[in-house]
Amino acid sequence: MMNILRVKLDKKEYEYQELPKKYYTVGGRGFIAGIMNDEVPPECYPLGSENKMIICTGPTSGLSISSGGRLSIGAKSPLTGGIKESNSGGMGAESLASLGLRGIILEGKINDDNWYILKVDEDKVEFIGAEEYLGLGNYETKDKLADKYDNYHLISIGQSGEYKYHNAGLSVSDLFGRTGRMAARGGLGAVLGSKKIKGILISSNGNYKHPALEKDEFKEARKEYHQLVANADRISVLREYGTASTVMEVQELGALPTRNFSEGQFEGAENLSGENIYDIIQERGGAGENFEPCMKGCIIQCSNVYPDKDGNELVAPLEYETLGLIGSNLGLSDPDDVARINRICNDYGLDTIETGGVLGVMAEAGLLEFGDAEGFIEAIKEVPKDTWIGRMIGMGTGVTAKLLNVKRAPVVKNQCMSAYDPRGVKGTGVTYATSPMGADHTAGLTVFMPMDHHDKKDQIDVSRKMQVGRAAYDTLGLCVFLMAATAPHPEVIVKMINSIFDLDKDEGFITELGEKTIKWEKEFNKKAGFDKSDDRIPEYFKKEALPPFDLKWDFEDEELDSIFEDLE
Amino acid sequence: MMNILRVKLDKKEYEYQELPKKYYTVGGRGFIAGIMNDEVPPECYPLGSENKMIICTGPTSGLSISSGGRLSIGAKSPLTGGIKESNSGGMGAESLASLGLRGIILEGKINDDNWYILKVDEDKVEFIGAEEYLGLGNYETKDKLADKYDNYHLISIGQSGEYKYHNAGLSVSDLFGRTGRMAARGGLGAVLGSKKIKGILISSNGNYKHPALEKDEFKEARKEYHQLVANADRISVLREYGTASTVMEVQELGALPTRNFSEGQFEGAENLSGENIYDIIQERGGAGENFEPCMKGCIIQCSNVYPDKDGNELVAPLEYETLGLIGSNLGLSDPDDVARINRICNDYGLDTIETGGVLGVMAEAGLLEFGDAEGFIEAIKEVPKDTWIGRMIGMGTGVTAKLLNVKRAPVVKNQCMSAYDPRGVKGTGVTYATSPMGADHTAGLTVFMPMDHHDKKDQIDVSRKMQVGRAAYDTLGLCVFLMAATAPHPEVIVKMINSIFDLDKDEGFITELGEKTIKWEKEFNKKAGFDKSDDRIPEYFKKEALPPFDLKWDFEDEELDSIFEDLE
Repeated sequence: MMNILRVKLDKKEYEYQELPKKYYTVGGRGFIAGIMNDEVPPECYPLGSENKMIICTGPTSGLSISSGGRLSIGAKSPLTGGIKESNSGGMGAESLASLGLRGIILEGKINDDNWYILKVDEDKVEFIGAEEYLGLGNYETKDKLADKYDNYHLISIGQSGEYKYHNAGLSVSDLFGRTGRMAARGGLGAVLGSKKIKGILISSNGNYKHPALEKDEFKEARKEYHQLVANADRISVLREYGTASTVMEVQELGALPTRNFSEGQFEGAENLSGENIYDIIQERGGAGENFEPCMKGCIIQCSNVYPDKDGNELVAPLEYETLGLIGSNLGLSDPDDVARINRICNDYGLDTIETGGVLGVMAEAGLLEFGDAEGFIEAIKEVPKDTWIGRMIGMGTGVTAKLLNVKRAPVVKNQCMSAYDPRGVKGTGVTYATSPMGADHTAGLTVFMPMDHHDKKDQIDVSRKMQVGRAAYDTLGLCVFLMAATAPHPEVIVKMINSIFDLDKDEGFITELGEKTIKWEKEFNKKAGFDKSDDRIPEYFKKEALPPFDLKWDFEDEELDSIFEDLE
Repeated sequence: MMNILRVKLDKKEYEYQELPKKYYTVGGRGFIAGIMNDEVPPECYPLGSENKMIICTGPTSGLSISSGGRLSIGAKSPLTGGIKESNSGGMGAESLASLGLRGIILEGKINDDNWYILKVDEDKVEFIGAEEYLGLGNYETKDKLADKYDNYHLISIGQSGEYKYHNAGLSVSDLFGRTGRMAARGGLGAVLGSKKIKGILISSNGNYKHPALEKDEFKEARKEYHQLVANADRISVLREYGTASTVMEVQELGALPTRNFSEGQFEGAENLSGENIYDIIQERGGAGENFEPCMKGCIIQCSNVYPDKDGNELVAPLEYETLGLIGSNLGLSDPDDVARINRICNDYGLDTIETGGVLGVMAEAGLLEFGDAEGFIEAIKEVPKDTWIGRMIGMGTGVTAKLLNVKRAPVVKNQCMSAYDPRGVKGTGVTYATSPMGADHTAGLTVFMPMDHHDKKDQIDVSRKMQVGRAAYDTLGLCVFLMAATAPHPEVIVKMINSIFDLDKDEGFITELGEKTIKWEKEFNKKAGFDKSDDRIPEYFKKEALPPFDLKWDFEDEELDSIFEDLE
């Protein structure tokens, strides 16, 4: 079966170890939760040598399964202080799988004076001095490395990770060799930076062939799965408009974060809509003519490529969360402005959600002005200079709100909320509050469920279902965008997993997997010092009604505490 | 009996109300805990209109009881997010008592565009426009107001309170009309600032005579109490050397915070010692020749007056906590430097403990240099300019450590520890961890107990005794320095209280009072979102051994959690 690569950074040693059987079906987020619980002291300093960085695939990578190549990156988060998994598209996972690797575990930290790039092949790891890449953004780092190492995919950090900013993510290269698929959330780029690793090159020349690839039973199950995915309505929307299609839906719900989450509808929303962005791309043509996949063989192909006025690629993809947090939340209605800021964030390695959150707080404090794109860009450009302004953006929404005495900090567990105001999409608010991940829509988005999102009725149940489902998909390495197609038919995925590993699981397996992952994560967080009082939406969401629908956050503590009672 | 003055700031209305009977014996910290629990929503924003500021005396004020005139100031703390009481010497309490007032409760906040000084007399409150005092430090504010209102004692905030910095205290004027007796901790100056009140003038022309003053039984009990206090050894040390006498004791224990709590002995400790400061004062003469009381009739008279080289008063008093946090913790061994910084802190209204803590963190981050007094002074002088450096100092140790990514933040509940490293004075560490007040020696200092302070044996019990005792003294309005004399003889104080209020309490009354106060405070904090995970010393104190005695913090969570189990 597959291997794990352990790298002991302090000694510059490494070992390829057999993947323990208990992790055959438990990859990605579940693998991270398992390893963290077994090996990392929960109370450790996130940027110290006791923390580990885990970079891994799910069990569906390397098998030509559409959307099965999510790359999970995990560690104890410097931003939340709890366990964190952030996953990205791109080719990182498929490259690992082609080397026969389920994952890489980075232990300790470099203890000489240098930084390194790790170069990972099927049978060896090299430590390449990173001197010439220090201080560079992700784009230039990728370009310079691609000149020398053209058959490698890259996971890298920008300047924000070098500074160990808690708003630093990791950038992963995609099918076309372009970097910018971000494992953005939770400051995991700072963890790599704390270990003095600027990037990881993963060979794309691996020869590993998973034995299941030859099995007829597996091929049959995979075909059935691909048909299911290809025919789903929601997925055809994603293929045409990408996640930007969500803008007008959330605008209609009155839950589009606007000017630091003080309003739920934005007067410029139509400019930011999927339809408008589609039109711009069509009109400008050039690099951005088509939607494309981020990884090989993906049927969904949700990624737009946003061109500048001359048709040259500006950023890819331009996602809904960025349109919400950098767009409406900062009062910016021109998608060109949002795309420009998005590119800078990707380059420095900043999470666009956290960045939109902290800039919103700075604008509320009067340091910047809502709607002033050039002002925001000037501020972000301070990040690589490590100035006061740069450091606030680098450290994120919660700390900056404290420093500036801004009461309205839209954070849970110190992490900024995604682009759904919890007062208007209440199930997602429940997820923000109760997920071990902090305020993170990817942990359990409810907005596409057919229900009244303003009414708290049933939201606890729906949030739990989505949280468990997403934890399972993140554990299998499957893109959560599949869920619209596959969640109603768990047997299709279970059949595929059974055929890969010669198992006989029933359709309850998906739920078991998700529950196990969340249980492990909650165990870690509890030992790290978290408790129920951390599972709360900030008080002001209860008191300040969100215009225009005058929505308030109205959950009692006991309701929130009931959600995972059986897993504790 | 006495009254409470309630001021509704939004309407500029006030009312003198009769003190409820349940508060006859419950003043100061207990009164604050009671009112906060009854009237303030625990989850409120500390700088919002729902928070109240309570300024009150204990039941021993106004009765010519030595050291019975502590002034308690309380609110929900913007620094800790929990309930906070900070008390000071000076003449605030005796002035209130002379007006027949147990306390003032400030409700709501000014909602016109102006700031005000409140002028409080026996039967009326005036709102004086504060325009001409805005931007001034406490010393100049006091001087300017004294020109116009010479028969008033003052409670004021400096620039730090105007900026609503979480490291802002309140300055109270003393027996000699001098300001600088600080109710420093927990950012309560920011609460007054949030209400747009620059200061409170309290008439010293009150005519209220407490009925007990005429009772022979009371006079007899008071005499017995005064004899007990006058004859205690510890108190004669305080009278000769002040709290500075503690420097060498803590140095010997290897628990003197040195260079951001990284060492427990400081090579310059002797320069900072009570003996050396005594010699300097003797030699320079001038204003600083004698020790003096901060309030009328105090037998202890622990306050030194530190003169500059020309014999002119520089600061009064220069206390042990300041010598520890501004001195050894910043690597400064010249008491002149410490005194100069102390004066600036008093002027701006900064807590010297929190200021020493945050400057230590900034030095560890490389922004400033240990031992460089001029560098520290330059940094502090940024406070009234609201620059980056100023704002970090203003917001305190915890937030700044997060912003600067400094792992070693010596805080509990976001409040900086006092001048006893918890690894070397373990009982005081237990107090830091478990007190509802955050890391605060005044909540239960154990260093003068005859025991092995390096051994955790019995420390939970001793901390609890000291915490309960100090809560009781803070509730009675008695200076905790009395405890060395009076704690072994609770019957002497109980007899005095019985004689004042015609009661028949036994000597268990002191303990009951302290326990009730702590119980109320813990109730408030629990509703505000605190739980046991907040009752912890930061993890690094467990891992990093403190030189020179290689001491570690070695308490299990369960041991800490046991301390107040019966009060929850």
